[in-house]
Amino acid sequence: MKTGRLHQCSNRSTVPETSRSRCPSVRVQASGEAARVAVLGASGYTGAEVVRLTALHPGIKVTALTGEKQAGKSFSDVFPHLVTATSVPKLVKIEDVNYKDVDAIFCCLPHATTQEVIKKLPTHLKIVDLSADFRLRNVATYAEWYGHEHVAPELQKEAVYGLTELFREQVKGARLVANPGCYPTCSQLPLYPLLKAGLILTDDIIIDAKSGVSGAGRAAKESNLYCEIAEGINSYAVGKHRHMPEVEQGLSEASGKDVRVSFTPHLMNLSRGMQTTSYVKLAPGVTVDKLREHLSSIYESEAFVKVLPKDVIPHTRHVRGSNFCFMNVFEDRLPGRAVVISVIDNLVKGASGQALQNLNLMLGYSETTALMQLAMFP
Amino acid sequence: MKTGRLHQCSNRSTVPETSRSRCPSVRVQASGEAARVAVLGASGYTGAEVVRLTALHPGIKVTALTGEKQAGKSFSDVFPHLVTATSVPKLVKIEDVNYKDVDAIFCCLPHATTQEVIKKLPTHLKIVDLSADFRLRNVATYAEWYGHEHVAPELQKEAVYGLTELFREQVKGARLVANPGCYPTCSQLPLYPLLKAGLILTDDIIIDAKSGVSGAGRAAKESNLYCEIAEGINSYAVGKHRHMPEVEQGLSEASGKDVRVSFTPHLMNLSRGMQTTSYVKLAPGVTVDKLREHLSSIYESEAFVKVLPKDVIPHTRHVRGSNFCFMNVFEDRLPGRAVVISVIDNLVKGASGQALQNLNLMLGYSETTALMQLAMFP
Amino acid sequence: MKTGRLHQCSNRSTVPETSRSRCPSVRVQASGEAARVAVLGASGYTGAEVVRLTALHPGIKVTALTGEKQAGKSFSDVFPHLVTATSVPKLVKIEDVNYKDVDAIFCCLPHATTQEVIKKLPTHLKIVDLSADFRLRNVATYAEWYGHEHVAPELQKEAVYGLTELFREQVKGARLVANPGCYPTCSQLPLYPLLKAGLILTDDIIIDAKSGVSGAGRAAKESNLYCEIAEGINSYAVGKHRHMPEVEQGLSEASGKDVRVSFTPHLMNLSRGMQTTSYVKLAPGVTVDKLREHLSSIYESEAFVKVLPKDVIPHTRHVRGSNFCFMNVFEDRLPGRAVVISVIDNLVKGASGQALQNLNLMLGYSETTALMQLAMFP
Amino acid sequence: MKTGRLHQCSNRSTVPETSRSRCPSVRVQASGEAARVAVLGASGYTGAEVVRLTALHPGIKVTALTGEKQAGKSFSDVFPHLVTATSVPKLVKIEDVNYKDVDAIFCCLPHATTQEVIKKLPTHLKIVDLSADFRLRNVATYAEWYGHEHVAPELQKEAVYGLTELFREQVKGARLVANPGCYPTCSQLPLYPLLKAGLILTDDIIIDAKSGVSGAGRAAKESNLYCEIAEGINSYAVGKHRHMPEVEQGLSEASGKDVRVSFTPHLMNLSRGMQTTSYVKLAPGVTVDKLREHLSSIYESEAFVKVLPKDVIPHTRHVRGSNFCFMNVFEDRLPGRAVVISVIDNLVKGASGQALQNLNLMLGYSETTALMQLAMFP
Repeated sequence: MKTGRLHQCSNRSTVPETSRSRCPSVRVQASGEAARVAVLGASGYTGAEVVRLTALHPGIKVTALTGEKQAGKSFSDVFPHLVTATSVPKLVKIEDVNYKDVDAIFCCLPHATTQEVIKKLPTHLKIVDLSADFRLRNVATYAEWYGHEHVAPELQKEAVYGLTELFREQVKGARLVANPGCYPTCSQLPLYPLLKAGLILTDDIIIDAKSGVSGAGRAAKESNLYCEIAEGINSYAVGKHRHMPEVEQGLSEASGKDVRVSFTPHLMNLSRGMQTTSYVKLAPGVTVDKLREHLSSIYESEAFVKVLPKDVIPHTRHVRGSNFCFMNVFEDRLPGRAVVISVIDNLVKGASGQALQNLNLMLGYSETTALMQLAMFP
Repeated sequence: MKTGRLHQCSNRSTVPETSRSRCPSVRVQASGEAARVAVLGASGYTGAEVVRLTALHPGIKVTALTGEKQAGKSFSDVFPHLVTATSVPKLVKIEDVNYKDVDAIFCCLPHATTQEVIKKLPTHLKIVDLSADFRLRNVATYAEWYGHEHVAPELQKEAVYGLTELFREQVKGARLVANPGCYPTCSQLPLYPLLKAGLILTDDIIIDAKSGVSGAGRAAKESNLYCEIAEGINSYAVGKHRHMPEVEQGLSEASGKDVRVSFTPHLMNLSRGMQTTSYVKLAPGVTVDKLREHLSSIYESEAFVKVLPKDVIPHTRHVRGSNFCFMNVFEDRLPGRAVVISVIDNLVKGASGQALQNLNLMLGYSETTALMQLAMFP
Repeated sequence: MKTGRLHQCSNRSTVPETSRSRCPSVRVQASGEAARVAVLGASGYTGAEVVRLTALHPGIKVTALTGEKQAGKSFSDVFPHLVTATSVPKLVKIEDVNYKDVDAIFCCLPHATTQEVIKKLPTHLKIVDLSADFRLRNVATYAEWYGHEHVAPELQKEAVYGLTELFREQVKGARLVANPGCYPTCSQLPLYPLLKAGLILTDDIIIDAKSGVSGAGRAAKESNLYCEIAEGINSYAVGKHRHMPEVEQGLSEASGKDVRVSFTPHLMNLSRGMQTTSYVKLAPGVTVDKLREHLSSIYESEAFVKVLPKDVIPHTRHVRGSNFCFMNVFEDRLPGRAVVISVIDNLVKGASGQALQNLNLMLGYSETTALMQLAMFP
Repeated sequence: MKTGRLHQCSNRSTVPETSRSRCPSVRVQASGEAARVAVLGASGYTGAEVVRLTALHPGIKVTALTGEKQAGKSFSDVFPHLVTATSVPKLVKIEDVNYKDVDAIFCCLPHATTQEVIKKLPTHLKIVDLSADFRLRNVATYAEWYGHEHVAPELQKEAVYGLTELFREQVKGARLVANPGCYPTCSQLPLYPLLKAGLILTDDIIIDAKSGVSGAGRAAKESNLYCEIAEGINSYAVGKHRHMPEVEQGLSEASGKDVRVSFTPHLMNLSRGMQTTSYVKLAPGVTVDKLREHLSSIYESEAFVKVLPKDVIPHTRHVRGSNFCFMNVFEDRLPGRAVVISVIDNLVKGASGQALQNLNLMLGYSETTALMQLAMFP
């Protein structure tokens, strides 16, 4: 990135825009050249989603797309629904990108590979990493859950955890952002503030999570075939899912105590959509209404997090295709307990949308730029 | 039912058959005339399912089908997939059935209506009621949850709760069986024996339940339209679902204590299928393996309940169309806790299949007759 | 609409923008106040889709929403996925709209009602009617297919048929645009130019059409319940569908001859998406390549119609949520024949998207404003 | 197969049973030992379906299952929904089957491999081959469409084409039956008799076909992932599908002329289900009613083919899981034309069900044994 443009970026307005502002990108476009962005590992669903979202972004231009196996192909050979995105470049190999002409990176590579790649990249690049590689602050925890030593522990120290609403200020100044996992995004958005405020107890937090299949990526696996998924649900990785330590890291930080959670993910027959149903214990004297009020207050001025009116139940269908998280809190039949429900689109707020939200901040753009598309229903 | 046939029925072998026995109906057919069965409220999905299942039953002949609004139509006008079930009669009104020529009833009417209808039926009829009307032993609890007084409290006293594997002996001798709800079937099959054996604690039982849409019936409601359901999930009736007192009644009985449960149902985009993911606390000194072993032992000789091998996760897809319940128990990450998963087809084991299982017993047939169809996958 | 603004509108650039232009709305926003738009019959899927699309439109502000049964409710009570569209007004009754403060109308009412309503509206309003009421130029044909006399034949004469790519100039100057049906849009986009150029014969045109369920609207009907639609396909209205005369009207006009078509629609288990597979006879000496070339040439500069590269098959999934029509032409095994395939999202290019495309032209905005969202896949 | 049993088989009643007969298997079971059947290539969907269907067959016992990659596994490791089919053996390699202890074979291997395998099998085996390898009588046509020479042309001469309703007598005496493809089954069942009777013309037969995904098998391919298939439809293999010559072979035979057809398959988001919508020209003087009458008359006594009442439209949902084919004929808007619609479950009547129907005949069992399960709806 040339100094000139960087300077322009830092001059850009970062006043938070509300969901009421229309076409927020307009102000930005006039202020300078677009940032040049490369998407590494663009042949998966999160890569395609980055391209879909940034297509409406006046301040970002995708100038490189990589895909090791697909190098040489046009992007629409790989994703025919993007045939009308005529300005995107062909796929190339990672080593064939000219990083001098790149300002920022969305890294959509698999874990482990990611560390190897990122530690070799030039340091002028702003990076949002969508893999799990830099999410766990403790590299020993990483090694425990991912089965191998972390090879870029120095970078890990630099990485900022990009759950935007909770760590906005750190994200703004970051060079490397670890974009959160989909389950951790969906579950922490309600639970983190409740724990931080001491409104719920740290013990016996039970998270029953449900996800669409796109979270499993585009790799050809028998278990993700249409016929294997259609018209059914199943739990998986019970007691063992790798998003668990990420959630625990956040909730421990929020509460100042070592928190362990029960977390059971379920795979459903839907492409996009995620719900976490969290069963929590109220702190002494706290009511369910108090939880709702606190969340409403915390998220009042946020563009992307919406605490629904009392008794209104969040549906995954109502955030599909959007960067929104809808949430609500309900009375449990068991006294002293509450049911906390939150929903996101796992590919948007749970991946590429939040990644763009982070990059917007890192580049000095308005946080909501190109992200105010409403949900697509039906 | 003529006395002669009744006598024959009671002579029929009721030795439980295992899932290994092939075409179990054979022994039955030779032993006498088929029982004449009426299906009241046959125009809903459970009515159609009764017809589908009994079509292969050598000892049952459906001789009357009622549907108030559809009276006069052939059954295949209402359910075109049954056009090949050529022996089923036309739909008539409830009052137009000649009950003298009927031996047994499947009652698929809505709650409240059911009480009114059943209390007027001749007492020679064996009845399996698929509604909620006779499931709650305490009519005051019924009144509390259903919003009106029970109008047939005497019948309630007579009714046997038909969770077949748990109450088989009572069912055999019953005249009126209250067929359990789908959620109570799916959740109690694992939890009842665990509580009864004192292997899990009665407090903090959390049941996160997921169901396909057919459980909501065939009534034309906006909320059940394809476009409203496709590609999504949502919780509903959080903290308020009417199956809750039914589950609590069973679990209280099992444990000898007053049990309350947290129960949150979810509606998914699938026609058939139900999972309950139950989060339970182990009794002191008890291990997860012990839970599995106990359930395996309890259900070892059962035809329809299958405790899967260790670590194998039940999928709703794997019981679709069948009367099976698959279950398993898993380590929770939280110490002292376990995750109990069970799956059924809500229209079969959760409704019409279990109803037939009960009627088989009531009529002296082998319990598995016409119910050994394997699951349809994909 | 105040004269001042109208004048501004007519000064706005209407140079067609290509799909490569980014955030095309920018130029517009600076040029004046937003047009005030009312959506009549907003409680159906096309109404919601209008709100979704116009939310990103800098030159349109939805200032009234009507829904007879839902009057008084907030729009998010009816469409919870639009809870974040905080600027939209409450639903009111049609007669409670103050039309003096309205510049343009999207009319999403059922047929017949539409005529009654539109003929009473003030004449300063620009109207895009999404119903079938003004599509058939011959009111006798209307009467024949819709079973009653047309009550606004004078308005019919004024109406312009809004298949935008084919009738752009007329749309620009229109006050009342009859927005085409979804099937007619999808099938005419390829067939009209081919007939007009005399490249295919007028006889034996066979259109096998497939549609998602949202085309049937949001009314609560048993036949559109999830369980009735899931995992299946069926033809309907064989030989009788009301979109047939509309297609025939267009194709007759294109060819200068009276054209009849064979048209068989199919209902599939998907919310959005439409394909027409048309089987046509080549004119003497014409090749399949010639058909492709002609369509490519005709649509070369169009933003929303994309003739795919040779042999690439259009999928409905690849246009979902977008205003694009993808099409292609293939060799048939029968000599002298071709297979013409086109796909759209029935709610966007087949309804609300094309309606906005038309209103953009009528108001002097760039045609693509707020319509360049890429398809959402998966 | 021991001579004794063979003799018993040939004594078994082969009187066709109608759909009204209940538990048709009963008579058979008493008459002797079950035939010992091996399923080669059992790890695909058709293999699982054979196991599902034969589980209720009193005269067939599956004694060997092969799967090259899965050899050594229990069948429920590969198909967990069959964990309750406890009597099925483990998977072994093809060469590890002891064919002396086998009476009959379902061959579910891929094409080409099939020829190699079958020509080495002992000749005492009755074989139903579900692949395409023996369907085309002319091995030159095979070579043209499959890209390599046929390696078992002698066996080809012996093979009987197993479209059961049309070639029942040949099937009864066959040793090797080529089970028809799903598209050829669905389309020929109505078209073959119409052509044979001269009621429709041989030119311009256009078959628009729609299939669920299970027809593509269980191989892990990106194009069959849930996310690639959900909520959409697409044509494929336009003008080139390998089922085309099979259909043409049958229709040519029926009409005594060389028939070419236009055939365009479509892939839909459903696991099971197939429809062919055929557009045909009436022979001079023939009416649509005459077509219906002829089909009704031809199929009147058939258990599995049902011509629906006039105007009733076949749905794929209404045959799901069953061996039925529903069909009907409709007026086309184009004079002199008709629309012929037929639906099947591609895995049952389109594959494993028809295979069992054929083997029933070859073994002397009643044709409907274990095949009278009604469709599963919803």
